[in-house]
Order: sequence, then C-alpha cells, then structure tokens
Amino acid sequence: MAYNLLKGKRGIIFGALDNDSIAWKVAEKAHEEGAIFTLSNTPLALRFGEINELAEKTNSEIIMADATSLEDLELVITKSMEILGGQIDFILHSIGMSMNVRKGRKYDDLNYDFYHKTLDVSAISFHKTLQVARKLDAISDWGSVVALSYVAAQRTLFRYNDMADAKAMLESIARSFGYIYGRDKKIRVNTISQSPTLTTAGKGVKGIDNLIDFTDRMSPLGNATAAECADYCIVMFSDLTRKVTMQNLFHDGGFSSMGMSWKAMQMYNKSIDSTIGTADFEYDD
Amino acid sequence: MAYNLLKGKRGIIFGALDNDSIAWKVAEKAHEEGAIFTLSNTPLALRFGEINELAEKTNSEIIMADATSLEDLELVITKSMEILGGQIDFILHSIGMSMNVRKGRKYDDLNYDFYHKTLDVSAISFHKTLQVARKLDAISDWGSVVALSYVAAQRTLFRYNDMADAKAMLESIARSFGYIYGRDKKIRVNTISQSPTLTTAGKGVKGIDNLIDFTDRMSPLGNATAAECADYCIVMFSDLTRKVTMQNLFHDGGFSSMGMSWKAMQMYNKSIDSTIGTADFEYDD
Amino acid sequence: MAYNLLKGKRGIIFGALDNDSIAWKVAEKAHEEGAIFTLSNTPLALRFGEINELAEKTNSEIIMADATSLEDLELVITKSMEILGGQIDFILHSIGMSMNVRKGRKYDDLNYDFYHKTLDVSAISFHKTLQVARKLDAISDWGSVVALSYVAAQRTLFRYNDMADAKAMLESIARSFGYIYGRDKKIRVNTISQSPTLTTAGKGVKGIDNLIDFTDRMSPLGNATAAECADYCIVMFSDLTRKVTMQNLFHDGGFSSMGMSWKAMQMYNKSIDSTIGTADFEYDD
Amino acid sequence: MAYNLLKGKRGIIFGALDNDSIAWKVAEKAHEEGAIFTLSNTPLALRFGEINELAEKTNSEIIMADATSLEDLELVITKSMEILGGQIDFILHSIGMSMNVRKGRKYDDLNYDFYHKTLDVSAISFHKTLQVARKLDAISDWGSVVALSYVAAQRTLFRYNDMADAKAMLESIARSFGYIYGRDKKIRVNTISQSPTLTTAGKGVKGIDNLIDFTDRMSPLGNATAAECADYCIVMFSDLTRKVTMQNLFHDGGFSSMGMSWKAMQMYNKSIDSTIGTADFEYDD
Repeated sequence: MAYNLLKGKRGIIFGALDNDSIAWKVAEKAHEEGAIFTLSNTPLALRFGEINELAEKTNSEIIMADATSLEDLELVITKSMEILGGQIDFILHSIGMSMNVRKGRKYDDLNYDFYHKTLDVSAISFHKTLQVARKLDAISDWGSVVALSYVAAQRTLFRYNDMADAKAMLESIARSFGYIYGRDKKIRVNTISQSPTLTTAGKGVKGIDNLIDFTDRMSPLGNATAAECADYCIVMFSDLTRKVTMQNLFHDGGFSSMGMSWKAMQMYNKSIDSTIGTADFEYDD
Repeated sequence: MAYNLLKGKRGIIFGALDNDSIAWKVAEKAHEEGAIFTLSNTPLALRFGEINELAEKTNSEIIMADATSLEDLELVITKSMEILGGQIDFILHSIGMSMNVRKGRKYDDLNYDFYHKTLDVSAISFHKTLQVARKLDAISDWGSVVALSYVAAQRTLFRYNDMADAKAMLESIARSFGYIYGRDKKIRVNTISQSPTLTTAGKGVKGIDNLIDFTDRMSPLGNATAAECADYCIVMFSDLTRKVTMQNLFHDGGFSSMGMSWKAMQMYNKSIDSTIGTADFEYDD
Repeated sequence: MAYNLLKGKRGIIFGALDNDSIAWKVAEKAHEEGAIFTLSNTPLALRFGEINELAEKTNSEIIMADATSLEDLELVITKSMEILGGQIDFILHSIGMSMNVRKGRKYDDLNYDFYHKTLDVSAISFHKTLQVARKLDAISDWGSVVALSYVAAQRTLFRYNDMADAKAMLESIARSFGYIYGRDKKIRVNTISQSPTLTTAGKGVKGIDNLIDFTDRMSPLGNATAAECADYCIVMFSDLTRKVTMQNLFHDGGFSSMGMSWKAMQMYNKSIDSTIGTADFEYDD
Repeated sequence: MAYNLLKGKRGIIFGALDNDSIAWKVAEKAHEEGAIFTLSNTPLALRFGEINELAEKTNSEIIMADATSLEDLELVITKSMEILGGQIDFILHSIGMSMNVRKGRKYDDLNYDFYHKTLDVSAISFHKTLQVARKLDAISDWGSVVALSYVAAQRTLFRYNDMADAKAMLESIARSFGYIYGRDKKIRVNTISQSPTLTTAGKGVKGIDNLIDFTDRMSPLGNATAAECADYCIVMFSDLTRKVTMQNLFHDGGFSSMGMSWKAMQMYNKSIDSTIGTADFEYDD
C-alpha cells in the first residue's frame, strides 16, 4: 500500500546490493511512494549484485562510486542532481565493511590499517557524503539524511568487532553534522538502529542465525525485517518528521529496551540443567 | 497535505483542550489522514475548553472521563468501540497535571498527597488505560499507543518539579507495558518527547517564554510545534512504524542531542560582561 | 583491608535485614572505614532479621521506622544526629517492596493500591528522606546520598513488574533532588544500579537463579556481589567523589553495556537444536 | 589527605604536561596514595612541559613515546614493567588532539588526513595501548584502565568539532575492549567524562571561558576541577571499584543530568530583553 509520501522528492540511495539489502527495500518503497532517485554502490558490488534489476524496476540510474573517495562522491551528487533535475531531498547511507572481521582478526588483534579502513568505509564515508553535499549545496532545505546503525554502538556483542566502534562514530557524526546542517539549512540527520538482518553480508557471519534467534525471542515484536526498516526510512524521509534530528532511532521490535524476556529465558533455561559448566569453553572471539 | 495514512483506523484521543493542545492537532491530522476516533477529556476541561468545536470539525464524539478512574476508562473504551464499530487501532495519551506546581510547592517541599496525584494523573492513568484496554481486548493486533513526554524525564529543569518524576515513570510504563502488549498482541507502546510547547497549560508556567527562547536557540531546527508533533504522532500510528516499540522518541529539533549551540551561547555571552556575580541571587525554585 | 575513607563521618543506613543484605555489607564496611552510623529498618524487619547482631558488631544503634512515614523519618534523622553528635555525612537508601509481586499480580493486572504502595515504599520514601533531612538541615555540606537501583529502570525484565517503574522513578528523584541539594548545600545524590543479588528478598523470586546465571555469563566480570557493592557505596560516601551527582552508576560487571557475550550465547545455543518451537509456551508473566 | 588506596600498585600515566593537566594531578595523587608508576608523553610535550619536575616529585621515570606508534607503546609498557618490577595495575590515558581544531578547519570543512589523525591520537591510541598491553600480558588480573572523555561524545557542542567523534569512539573502545579484557583477565576499562577543564590545551580554545561559565552555572556542584578528577581516577584504580567496567562515568558536578538550572537561566535572561534578534548573527563555527 502506498501513500505518496515522497511524491516529488529526489534522493540518493547508497548500498543496495541484492534483494536482501535494506537499501534495496528502501529503493522499492521510495519508488512506490513517488520518489525519484539514483542508486550508488561500488564497482565490485555492481559486479556481484543484482542492482541492475533494481534500477530497471525503479526507473533509476546507477552511479558507481567508492564512498570513501571525495571525487567519486562529488560525481555521484552532481550527476544525481543533473539526472533528477534539482536538489536532493533525501539520502540513505547503508554502507559498512570491516576487513578485520573478514580476515578473522579478533578485536584484541586488530590490524590498524584495516581498522582505519573500517572507519573510513563505515563511518567517515558518511561525513564525506555530508561534507561534499554541503559544499555543493546539494540538499534542499528540510531535506533528510539517514544512515543505518546497529545496537553494537551502545552495547558490546561478541564478534561484532571494530564495527561497533565504527557505528558509535557513525552515530556521533549524525549528531555533529546534524547540528551544522540543521542550523543552516533545516536539514535533519539521523541514524536508524536496525535489528540484526540476514543480508548477504550478514549471512556470512558465523553464528548469526543463533544470535538472530536470541534477539527475536528477546524482542516483544520479534526482529524487524529489511522491508519494515524500509518503511521506517520512508517515514524519516517524509515531511512528517521534520523536527526529528540528531537522533539514533531504534527499529528493533523492542530489543534495545529489553533486559530479559520470558521467551528468551525459557530457551536459555533448557540448557542450564544439562550443562556441565564452562570449564571446557574456549573463547571463539 | 494528506496521505491517507490512517485510513480505516479507529482511535481514542485523550487530552484535547483547545486549539493550542497537541492532542487537538493530532485529532485534526488524524481526521485528515482518514481515521475515525473519539475524544476524551475531563468534565472540567470540557467546560473550559473548546472541544465541542473540534468534535464537530472532525466528526467525533466526546466521552467525558477522569483518566484516573478505572470505571471511566472502561466506559470510554467500551463506548469508543461501539461508536467506531470495532477494536481500537491507536490511542493518544496527552495527560499531565501537578498540584504541587499549581500550588507553588517547590520540589523540596512537596505535598505528598499532591505527589501521588501527579503520578496518578500523569503516569498511572497511562497504565490504567492500557490495562483496561487489555482486559477488554480493545486494541487490535499491530495497534499503536503513544503518550507525550518531556526531556525532564532524563534531565532536570528547574521548576518542572515532580512532573519530571512522573514523566520518567510514564516512559517506564511504556517500556513495561510495551513488552507485555508487544509479546501478546503485536501492539506497540511509545512515548514522544516533545519540545516545550506553549499550550494553555504551559502558558501559565512562570518564565516559560525564556526557557522556550533558550531551547529554540539550542535546537538546530528550532523548537518543534504542536502541529509538527501531531505529524509525528500520525506516523507512529501508521502501519509504517510497526516494529518501533518501548522507545522514547525525541521530537525536539535536536535539543536532546545538544550540549551547546553557537546561537544560545551568543545570547548567553551578552550577559556575562555586564554581570556582577551571583552573590545577590535568591533561588526561585 | 581498610583505608579510613570514612573516618569521622556520620551516616544513616536504611534497609539492613540480614547477612545477605547489601545494606548489611555497607554497614560492615562503613564501620571498618571509620564511620559511625545508625541503622534503620521497619519493625517487621527487625523482628525477622538479625539486625541486632549487626548493631552490636558495628557499635550502632537501631532506630525503627517506616520509611513512608514523615514522622518516623523525622525521628530517625533527629535521633541519628543526637546519637552521632552532629550533622549526617552519608545516607544509604536500600528499600524496595512490591505487593503486586508478592501477591502474584502480573503487570497487566496490577492492583492500583498496591502500585501506589510500591511507589511509596520503593521511590517516594527516598524523596521523603531527602525532604525531611533538608527541612531539618540534617546533612552536612558535601554530604553524599546513595539509593540502590536496578537495570530494570532502563530495560524491561519479565517478572520485575511494577518495581521497574519504581526504580525509574527512584533514579529520577535522585536527579531532581540532586539538583536542589547540590545547588544549595553541595550535597550529592546518586543511585547505584547493582547486579541481581541473592538477598533474602531476592531469593523468593521465582526463576531468579537462572536469570542470575544469564547475567553472570553476560557480564565480563561476572555479577557483582553485595560485598563489592558495599565497596562502591563506601567510595561514593568518601571525599574522593565529591563532584559526582545526579548519576545512575552501574555496578554490574559490565552487564549494562553488553548486547551478547560468547559465554551466554554458548549456553543459549545448546537449547536451539533440541527445541521444538515455542508453540507450546504459555506465558508465565 | 591520603588513604593508601594504591599501596603496592604499579601504573602508567599518559598525558601529563604541566601543573594544569589532569594527568599531572593523577600522578600527584597516585603518588600520595602509595602507587609507583611511569610517566609517558611525546617528545614535544617533554620539551614544552614541565614533566621533569613531576617525575622528580613523584619519584617516577619518564618514557618518551608517540602513543600512535605500536613500537613506542611496546617500549613504554615493557620498560615500565622492568622499572616497576612487575605487571601493571593501572593505566591512565589522557591523550587527545585535533589538527582540524588547531588549524581552524570547521566540521563541515574537515581535512580527512587530519580527521584520521584525530582518531588515531585521541581514540585508536587507546586501543593500541590495550592491545599491546594484552599481547605482552602486561596488566595484572583485576587491573584498571581509565581514559578521559567529554560529554561531547553524547551531545554536540559547537567548536568541539571532530573531537566529539573521537570521544564517542574512545568510549566505544572502552566497551569493546572492556568485554575482552574483563572476560579473560578481570581487567576493567572505563572512561571518565570530565567537566570542561582549563588545561594548557584547553586555554587556547576560543570562547572556552564563557562555555565554562555556562557549565559551571548549569552544574549544581559547579564544574569539577582537575584535582577532583584525579581523586575519581584514584578511586577507579583502587580495589573498591572492581566490578565497574565498560562504563562512561560522568564527573561533572551534575551537568550531564541537567536540562536547565535557575542560575544559568538567570544569566541567560539578562540578555533577552536587550537583544535585537539574531538577524545579525554570523555563525562562527
């Protein structure tokens, strides 16, 4: 069901890879809601993903870019304004990557070049997008910018590794730049902290299924899906949320406000009687 | 501009008094967005307010109730279902009152009967509404309940007095009941923490104008208005925010994430040179 | 090992029942650290507890009081100053009780008289203590007041029931009164949010053992004990923490900052394969 | 007055420059409390500071190091263990620097090499210290690590610039590494979020005096001094806080829990009548 919430709005959506991506769902919904937009992702993602299908479906153009490159970002933003015919009304930043995670470097054995890379891709790219947009005066007054985050920014989850620090920094950037952009142009900047989601990137993470089972039982509404997250993004891009800025908005079925649910405890309890203690545990992160 | 976001939805709106009320604006917007609803307030409010005008305008019925009375709440909810023809999809709770504030009792000289009354009216009435609704199975699956809060729940503002404690409790009730209602019926419960707003109740508070000047200069987007708050409520009642629950959502132009803005500091600075110190201050709260 | 951290300080300790009580441990440590103090609890607690033993051991007098009674509090505070020979330097508030929990009333079936009683005993008693002390000018400049809280104030734990709301309110009172008392007398007011602890009261809670197993595995340092909590209270009463006020201080081995630990996940995982789903679950809270 | 709180403990203190430094005060207090320790700072700081005087006074050795260099950190930690005769019990990290601030680059015109440098010096150096220490098994069980932070990690203050993001990341590192180090060695890792402090570095910041006037009037206990912060650090290094980890601890006279104080409002109010609006404001950040 569509409401025309984004009728006449122009956007840029970073990070759609395939049908499991949150950014993909955002593009579909934004299209349904009347927006026009460009899609941007890395050359590598374009090769392995199915973004051409999405572009066709949503009548969008794809602009290749490495979001850590100022030149590329300048190109994406300039071309988007040309293609779409004016200033941009909304931007979605759904970008994150850790070489430390990929290469199995644990948090107490980080490679520091990788660490800087994690920050550059997953957090600083957000600052760069905003700074380039601002220099180009590319976002219209009362525009809206959203980046996707995760509760690891507030609470440690084993194996989430240096991405936790990147997400904490991402949320800080939203506040810091939200102040500037709000003050000068009435543009709002927020992060949405989404339930763990089985995207193509996420599927590769060891043990993710069990973590998702836990968060699902902990969350009174269950985990939020990618499609539901897209709905929330649409709302944040619409004119109905104009005074919400510098916020981290949990979209997680209630997980962030839970200490322990009966459902999760029941599952946990099943193990307790049969367990023989933790002496034989070897840490795996 | 309307989007049909609440088409076919049934609601109950507590707390509309006059054209300055947030609840009044919510009723207007909900009507525009296709909802049908009842209005409820106290007999006293009905006498002094202009709610009949609102009822006419939005084609709603008014049901008098003291929201601290279980019997009254049962009546409101039962009658609302009858009038609207089915289970309720959304509820707005915009109710708060402190006799300690009214009577000028400072926070270190509270009257404890008044204190219990503050809690009963401003926080427990929210629990009662939810408990009565649940016993009557009055809210439909995936329904949405919102109560209005204020940043005083997290940070002390002089003169806000025992209302701070009531708001902290109100937000706790949203979490506690959000867990129960989410788990069992997929109903979400949230609070919206709104900028200070010059409602009829607020206008009476001494010094409110200057505080509003300060929060306006601190907030990059300026203070949020009652009408903008209504937009945000609509969004929270819509089907686009189904997995947001147990949250306190700041709708405040960024105030809650600010430490100090340049604008507010400029105003503050003007006084510093000319001041002769604080030795002659007598506390006024 | 003792450091003389409280040498020459006078205190009042509310809530010691028996050797498992946090307040009991605080009394022991405060005695070791050179403080003199009075002990206060209800007549009922005095009958069933072993507080006489503690009084003897720490050379303290016991003053019976119902902490919801202004008269009783006035008596406790006045007599404490007489006995100890001057203004009070520190107060511990370790008081909480819910008739709804005791009587098995679930959170969506609260008895509202009990609810007010929960608030009165577990939160408002803290305000009363502070207000009475202030009217009597009973706390010395730079004095320190601590109340014990729990993470349920921020995150819902099934079965914690209306105590969650009481703790949220308790923490709000610490902020609200901390402002007043700090401004006027340099007195600090804080809450310590302690790990779940197997006190005599706690032992009666159904399923508490398993919850404690979970929080212990989630917390990198394990659950904090009552004796460790007492150490932290001593520190907060000492002159080394004079500028810490209006804070809720987590003393929980890290639990509050954890999303998921490897240890807790391992235990949880054991159940997943063998489980047959949740269809047969009946909620027990 | 000393308590022997750190008797027999060995430490490393990073960041003492001169008598205004928090780290300097920590060294003095740690010495009084019976600790032995080494001091570390950059060659530049050693040249311009007065750290030799501190070393003499506290009977400490100075080890020059660039805290962004793994080799240097390895040297500092290895030599400290040699000099002090065993594993380290506590570490203070008081390091921060932004070239963007120094060079007057505003937050919407960051130089990204500078930005990475800010993160490297002010946040990643903390991770490096912890990672190097862990590889060398240099911290004793139940050891304690503290880094100094600022409320800008949660709330935006104009002119604090990219240091806000660095502090947010620093606090995230404390959580992420606190999990690892707590789980494996019972070592706790926390940050202390201190009032704005007129250190030699701080003195250079434009307008800092007026900000400090504001935070002082907002904080019921007034701003916390460097010496008071040192007291709090001692407490966090002592054995009395063993179960506090992964926390950000506000040491700020209550500022972080304030929305508006009467004192600050009075000062603010003085300007309101005389002001002619904000039309002539030019943003200075």
